[in-house]
Amino acid sequence: MRITLIGSGNVATHLAAALKNAGHRIVQVYSRDAQHAALLAYHVGAEAIDNLATISPDTDIFIISVKDDAIIEMVKALARYQKIIVHTSGATNLKDLLAFTDNAGVLYPLQTFSKTKEVDFWAVPLCIEAANDDIKTDLEKLAATISNNIYHVNSADRKILHLAAVFACNFPNYLYAVAQQLLAGHQMNFDMLKPLILETAQKVQTQLPASVQTGPAVRNDVVTMNAHLQMLKAEPYWQEIYTLLSQGIIKNNNGGHRDK
Amino acid sequence: MRITLIGSGNVATHLAAALKNAGHRIVQVYSRDAQHAALLAYHVGAEAIDNLATISPDTDIFIISVKDDAIIEMVKALARYQKIIVHTSGATNLKDLLAFTDNAGVLYPLQTFSKTKEVDFWAVPLCIEAANDDIKTDLEKLAATISNNIYHVNSADRKILHLAAVFACNFPNYLYAVAQQLLAGHQMNFDMLKPLILETAQKVQTQLPASVQTGPAVRNDVVTMNAHLQMLKAEPYWQEIYTLLSQGIIKNNNGGHRDK
Repeated sequence: MRITLIGSGNVATHLAAALKNAGHRIVQVYSRDAQHAALLAYHVGAEAIDNLATISPDTDIFIISVKDDAIIEMVKALARYQKIIVHTSGATNLKDLLAFTDNAGVLYPLQTFSKTKEVDFWAVPLCIEAANDDIKTDLEKLAATISNNIYHVNSADRKILHLAAVFACNFPNYLYAVAQQLLAGHQMNFDMLKPLILETAQKVQTQLPASVQTGPAVRNDVVTMNAHLQMLKAEPYWQEIYTLLSQGIIKNNNGGHRDK
Repeated sequence: MRITLIGSGNVATHLAAALKNAGHRIVQVYSRDAQHAALLAYHVGAEAIDNLATISPDTDIFIISVKDDAIIEMVKALARYQKIIVHTSGATNLKDLLAFTDNAGVLYPLQTFSKTKEVDFWAVPLCIEAANDDIKTDLEKLAATISNNIYHVNSADRKILHLAAVFACNFPNYLYAVAQQLLAGHQMNFDMLKPLILETAQKVQTQLPASVQTGPAVRNDVVTMNAHLQMLKAEPYWQEIYTLLSQGIIKNNNGGHRDK
């Protein structure tokens, strides 16, 4: 397909690379920041533009991968070309696009992307939603060229998924940061925790998280929890997190078999 | 070495298997639960005992891997044999053992173990502490037969490490459970989140967690955060967690480059 990328952030960058590798032609990359557009366009052999007036109509699909609050503005500018327009956002309704175009869809990659780290796109779950069956078929075909994990998810469920991803990704990463800072404060190397972090994530690939919960809270080991709170007394914010999450684990642990 | 395992829980089980595989002889496995002792003893070719009076003195080291509050009781019973006695606990001081024996040490594996999942023990960080240089040498030699990651960590630092592990492992696992429950409540499959969970853990193997933080909080995307809180209104406890951890991310994000 001929593809136009609107945006040059983390999602746009990884998506563009995967699409290019799959043999699609990236026609243009738009960013309001000309340098960002140029960098990504260079990598995928596309034309860089920083002005929506220079959009080429010789494309099959516009993929909008910009901040949520800028999506509609892009849709308004692109609707006149009567091509498929999709966004890549977890939190934006398909309905919001339908006010401006019938050719609307969603291609939401459920993954965390960093510009500095490559991702195996084949393993990335791609959540599709489409305004009609034709677009649905087009998006299924397009998605199948870059991912093995295609899901049909409506806007309401996609929002739930996006929220769940905050709990499963953004919050754990923040807790890794707390752990790293805790060790750094005592001249210990974060490397020591890395195998533990990886194993914790690997465990839930095959088992339900609640069934493999470990640690003082799930054992209701009050002595250790109190000692930990005492150790955190210089960091009341971390104390608060410790208490709240430990209570959550205790609430969750309503009997049954657990690996404590 | 001739090794006696005191305990038959997750740590004892994985440690016993790794030691057995490394060619050591597991002499006895003690558990106050005869069936647990028998099961682990069977797997590692040892004698099972459920009575400390039947401990064999023909061993080189006692490895105590029981609940923290039962460790001292075991040390008291074993000190008379004048062998090396180590515990595997993150939270227990070496000093607590020295009240009963001079031949004391610590062998703390910094990993989360489940009986139902194998672990590559070579990658497990083993934290060593010893009462004297002879025992230190013995523990270094023993540790080197089962792990490539050996650290010397004193009791104060080991407690910090144990606390950091709660943030890096136990709490993220709990948040995975929340995400799984959120999806289950909307008939969505936890499988969709698994690549994201794994990638989040893999990212911090090579980069500092704070530098790869993503999500609405680090972007200070108030609209999305408010929408998420609204979606959680039936679960005030999860709302509280969402608010506290989002505020933590915002506090942490004091400028500098971030992958948002």
